[in-house]
Amino acid sequence: MTDLAKHNRMANAIRFLSADAVEKAKSGHPGLPMGIADVATVLFGQFLKYDPTKPDWPDRDRFVLSAGHGSMLLYSVHYLLGSEDFTIDQLKNFRQLGSLTAGHPEYGHGAGVETTTGPLGQGLANAVGMAIAERHLSEEFGPSLVDHHTYAIVGDGCLMEGISQEAISLAGHLKLRKLIVIWDDNGISIDGKVSLSDSTDQIERFEASGWETISIDGHDPAAIAAALSSARESDKPTLIAAKTTIGYGAPNKGGTEKVHGSPLGAEELEAARKALGWDAAPFEVPSDILDSWRIAGLRSGQARKEWEKRLAETDGEARGEFERRMRGDLPAGFKGALDALKKKLAAEQPNVATRKASERILGTINEAVPETIGGSADLTGSNNTKTAQTKSITPDDFSGRYIHWGIREHGMAAGMNGMALHGGVIPYSGTFLVFSDYARPAMRLSALMKQRVIHVMTHDSIGLGEDGPTHQPVEHYAALRAIPNLNFFRPADITETLECWELALESRKTPSVLALTRQNLASVRKTYDAENLCARGAYILDDSADDPAVTIFASGSEVGLAIEAKALLAAEGIQTRVVSVPSFELFEAQSEDYKASIVGDAPVKIAVETGIRMGWDRFIGADGIFVGMTGFGASAPYQALYEHFGITKEAVAAAAKARLHEKVEG
Amino acid sequence: MTDLAKHNRMANAIRFLSADAVEKAKSGHPGLPMGIADVATVLFGQFLKYDPTKPDWPDRDRFVLSAGHGSMLLYSVHYLLGSEDFTIDQLKNFRQLGSLTAGHPEYGHGAGVETTTGPLGQGLANAVGMAIAERHLSEEFGPSLVDHHTYAIVGDGCLMEGISQEAISLAGHLKLRKLIVIWDDNGISIDGKVSLSDSTDQIERFEASGWETISIDGHDPAAIAAALSSARESDKPTLIAAKTTIGYGAPNKGGTEKVHGSPLGAEELEAARKALGWDAAPFEVPSDILDSWRIAGLRSGQARKEWEKRLAETDGEARGEFERRMRGDLPAGFKGALDALKKKLAAEQPNVATRKASERILGTINEAVPETIGGSADLTGSNNTKTAQTKSITPDDFSGRYIHWGIREHGMAAGMNGMALHGGVIPYSGTFLVFSDYARPAMRLSALMKQRVIHVMTHDSIGLGEDGPTHQPVEHYAALRAIPNLNFFRPADITETLECWELALESRKTPSVLALTRQNLASVRKTYDAENLCARGAYILDDSADDPAVTIFASGSEVGLAIEAKALLAAEGIQTRVVSVPSFELFEAQSEDYKASIVGDAPVKIAVETGIRMGWDRFIGADGIFVGMTGFGASAPYQALYEHFGITKEAVAAAAKARLHEKVEG
Repeated sequence: MTDLAKHNRMANAIRFLSADAVEKAKSGHPGLPMGIADVATVLFGQFLKYDPTKPDWPDRDRFVLSAGHGSMLLYSVHYLLGSEDFTIDQLKNFRQLGSLTAGHPEYGHGAGVETTTGPLGQGLANAVGMAIAERHLSEEFGPSLVDHHTYAIVGDGCLMEGISQEAISLAGHLKLRKLIVIWDDNGISIDGKVSLSDSTDQIERFEASGWETISIDGHDPAAIAAALSSARESDKPTLIAAKTTIGYGAPNKGGTEKVHGSPLGAEELEAARKALGWDAAPFEVPSDILDSWRIAGLRSGQARKEWEKRLAETDGEARGEFERRMRGDLPAGFKGALDALKKKLAAEQPNVATRKASERILGTINEAVPETIGGSADLTGSNNTKTAQTKSITPDDFSGRYIHWGIREHGMAAGMNGMALHGGVIPYSGTFLVFSDYARPAMRLSALMKQRVIHVMTHDSIGLGEDGPTHQPVEHYAALRAIPNLNFFRPADITETLECWELALESRKTPSVLALTRQNLASVRKTYDAENLCARGAYILDDSADDPAVTIFASGSEVGLAIEAKALLAAEGIQTRVVSVPSFELFEAQSEDYKASIVGDAPVKIAVETGIRMGWDRFIGADGIFVGMTGFGASAPYQALYEHFGITKEAVAAAAKARLHEKVEG
Repeated sequence: MTDLAKHNRMANAIRFLSADAVEKAKSGHPGLPMGIADVATVLFGQFLKYDPTKPDWPDRDRFVLSAGHGSMLLYSVHYLLGSEDFTIDQLKNFRQLGSLTAGHPEYGHGAGVETTTGPLGQGLANAVGMAIAERHLSEEFGPSLVDHHTYAIVGDGCLMEGISQEAISLAGHLKLRKLIVIWDDNGISIDGKVSLSDSTDQIERFEASGWETISIDGHDPAAIAAALSSARESDKPTLIAAKTTIGYGAPNKGGTEKVHGSPLGAEELEAARKALGWDAAPFEVPSDILDSWRIAGLRSGQARKEWEKRLAETDGEARGEFERRMRGDLPAGFKGALDALKKKLAAEQPNVATRKASERILGTINEAVPETIGGSADLTGSNNTKTAQTKSITPDDFSGRYIHWGIREHGMAAGMNGMALHGGVIPYSGTFLVFSDYARPAMRLSALMKQRVIHVMTHDSIGLGEDGPTHQPVEHYAALRAIPNLNFFRPADITETLECWELALESRKTPSVLALTRQNLASVRKTYDAENLCARGAYILDDSADDPAVTIFASGSEVGLAIEAKALLAAEGIQTRVVSVPSFELFEAQSEDYKASIVGDAPVKIAVETGIRMGWDRFIGADGIFVGMTGFGASAPYQALYEHFGITKEAVAAAAKARLHEKVEG
């Protein structure tokens, strides 16, 4: 058998495993795996540094299937390489409940799935984040421990999504030379030919962002290998534009949208078998071909062993630090450093915006936790995310710890996902809270993937003032609290900000948003408490002497206002309790008893927050009083806005009294 | 005075009005207006077809300040042109409560603000939508009624946002020759030099998408005029890259980020006055310069009068139709056509997915309402948004009524905003509901701008099955219901789908989302009802004979399930009411009495929906039973998922019985 014949049969193994699985599931996307099989065979067979016997090897190459609908490509290839997770039974259970072989690749469902993809363009931006993490860690621990490539396969859909431009332009700017992107240029999308909706010269587009580009026939293994070799030598990120036929081998449907997202059908699948000379039964791979694949799977074993040897020979301290970082454990000194600051803050009682509070706390964190990498989407001075420890990362120097993401909130969030997935770093970065909308698809994915990604989102309410309703979050608290497995924190002062930062860093499986104010806030936590009170999600901050007649629930900047309202009520002898609610999510995780005690049974319950009511009925009931927003904000100095929208201590106190009066009268 | 001297003084009028207003407000962005003043002077003074005495003239050129933070540019220019809205007092009240001169330009706050901008990149995509609407209407009504340009000024931030790529690539593909974009190439962003985060060759990037490009000195009025003249002759969209100095004229801060987003300060402002030889007091414009501007304002008056003459001479039917469309009134036959279909559906009782139902209804709507323009983000066959009436729009033929938006959800939503703002068309289009996240920033703006934009969002739950959690909305119902002034509809069958479509089209000031199923649903509306029951937001669909012991609230695909659960409960003699809740927003708009009657006082209240609980406490109370999702979905056939997540008639009936038992026992 010639090399070419062997290559073809190895590629056909991918094609038919993929098509067979889609056929059996009666659902899925055969077109991509069949089209890109030649590229995948060369990439995984000859280039990718990956050891199926040790799939979590830190210095493995990262591979991202950004065009996630072609998930069967990933499952087929990993089965062929000898994955312990992607067995033939898993392939037979493609898209079935409880199988690892989900409709789209899901991180955590089997080794080899480096990220969850499907929502288009995300994987490309994840790959950029992975490549950044690699460059940074390589700088820090040296190329003997960290020196690998990041590969991504993207489709036309990925390249049409706006996020791709953010990823491409940042990667080009940073000269991420170890990033290699393969474009499955098949000219077909769901509606038909790509030319129905796009005429972009992708080569020119990537070159405009400083990429190397190589155009090849995606079915020519020699050309593929040459392109990959060349890409690995480039001093820029490389795009390999691989011209392919979608559903390659399907004689009637291949090359058309018919093969994109539906099973081939028995007849066409049989015809494809004939056309490509594949006579193995469904889900069977001739033993010689399986052997060839398994040998390819073992290819990187030696490199892995050599790397382990180098690690073992590494100075104990550096090795320990590297291993700690890759495990994701926080350094020993972290808790102590934060606690010392907490004591200091309790003594100082500063009156400071929580964004400024965050900056100060970050100074302590970044000193104690060397794996944090900060950043901002071009709002560094507003988000206060840069500290003395975080020198900027530049195209020529990755030793820094701060990324100027540019005005690219979506790419930033997806890039941070990639950094967290890579491991060894903890990404945090900033934008305005209202622009969480721009980043939302990527934030959802970090929640789904259970990644420790921290979003510092400042200017968190009408309290930002003059910039007006386009910049004032109103529905965003509810919208972010709605995302499963995302902790949305809205701290009330500097001490709560510290506690929320601590929780965010310790939440290894949950991304966090810290919603922070532009305006100054008085300290509401008057004494030092060793316990992290915010960990409860909601807690009694300022209790009544006797049973409360009124309980006021509030978050963030409105907690201070609640305390002021309590003073007004106290002047009239009304027993009032103030509950601070920094996190709905952590509150829900408490015991039923604790939750019941916080919700309490005060005759009057009021919630105060500069957002919409949605979600607060949990605390105040459907008949509770909500003092907050009912529509969009406005442009004016912030004090005028609080007055205008009736979010004042007087309004809270008056509403409480009126309701109490009703109850007494009633 | 030479022409150049006059130009300079006219431009300086913009500069100092803007800088003075920012100074007085102690807040705002002087850098952009000062930098782009020369371009604006030439554009508004010599080119833009706009009549301040008739700012709603339909055939005016559209101008979009995509870099919305430079809002004072717009306010200054319109004051100078003779706007009735932007008086000098308004300028003096920049960024104050109740003024028209909001921090960022807000649509509806004064004529001349064609769209709300501030969130970067949106304006550029709005402009693309406006240019599409122009081409389409020009095709339909002829160039004697519709023949104008769309201009946009964009900054580096706009071009870094991903949405810009979606807009640019679509505009290039469609060859929108009457779209002219001016890039304020000042090399500065908030963090400092743009080169901190970006190295894109924008000229090459735009050319890769098929644009004409022209590079000029943005302070040279002759070059600006020549570029604009040339751009107007191009057969492609044109980018004019205008090299400018941010804060031009400020001797110390000009050309740096210091002048981007903060007042100049008294000293620097005075120094700028000296440097540019401007000796007028704050907010004063020398009368000769004001005269020059006012004359420029009158420039298009003749063209406007000629257009009105042409309109008057237009055949009565065509004129009536044009005027109806521009007013935004629906055609007379619309209600009758929908009602006839509604009767037919009541007789037929089809069992059909609501996305297919929507397609059928759209067939009637598109026949009766010629101003609809449909589309999809490359999911035409899945969203079912194309009907017999909607021929595709192509680069060479804009007479069609269907846009292949490509895989560009964000650009699509922002483009639809631009179409709606332009007027004369009603845009609707499709994607999967989960990808509302990609479109969200633009959807928020259509709500803020009160635009009739209709989103057909299919595959609205775990009911989409195998594609898995990346494609299954869970938090999206709550997240969309959270946006003020957005109607989120989740119809339960084909009749409700028809009613929701009717409401969406009649909601002239509110955008709509129609969340539609992939899977078939039985008809739940058994008889014809002339009233649009969905207009109530929630209504009793299937009542109990006596007072209900159990009320089940449900939306969309779960309404049928609620009815089935009712049958199970009925078999045990438990009185059960089923309330269908197609729209939370319309429900809240009902009278207190009506709302109280729907919420009712059944001992047991249950809500069933394939989303999270958030929002449902409004109906069921904090102690009500919710049968739905608590986290992300999974990949499997949909029936298996409903079972897996316990969203079944049996689960609903069992929960109701258990609670009833508790209550009776208690």
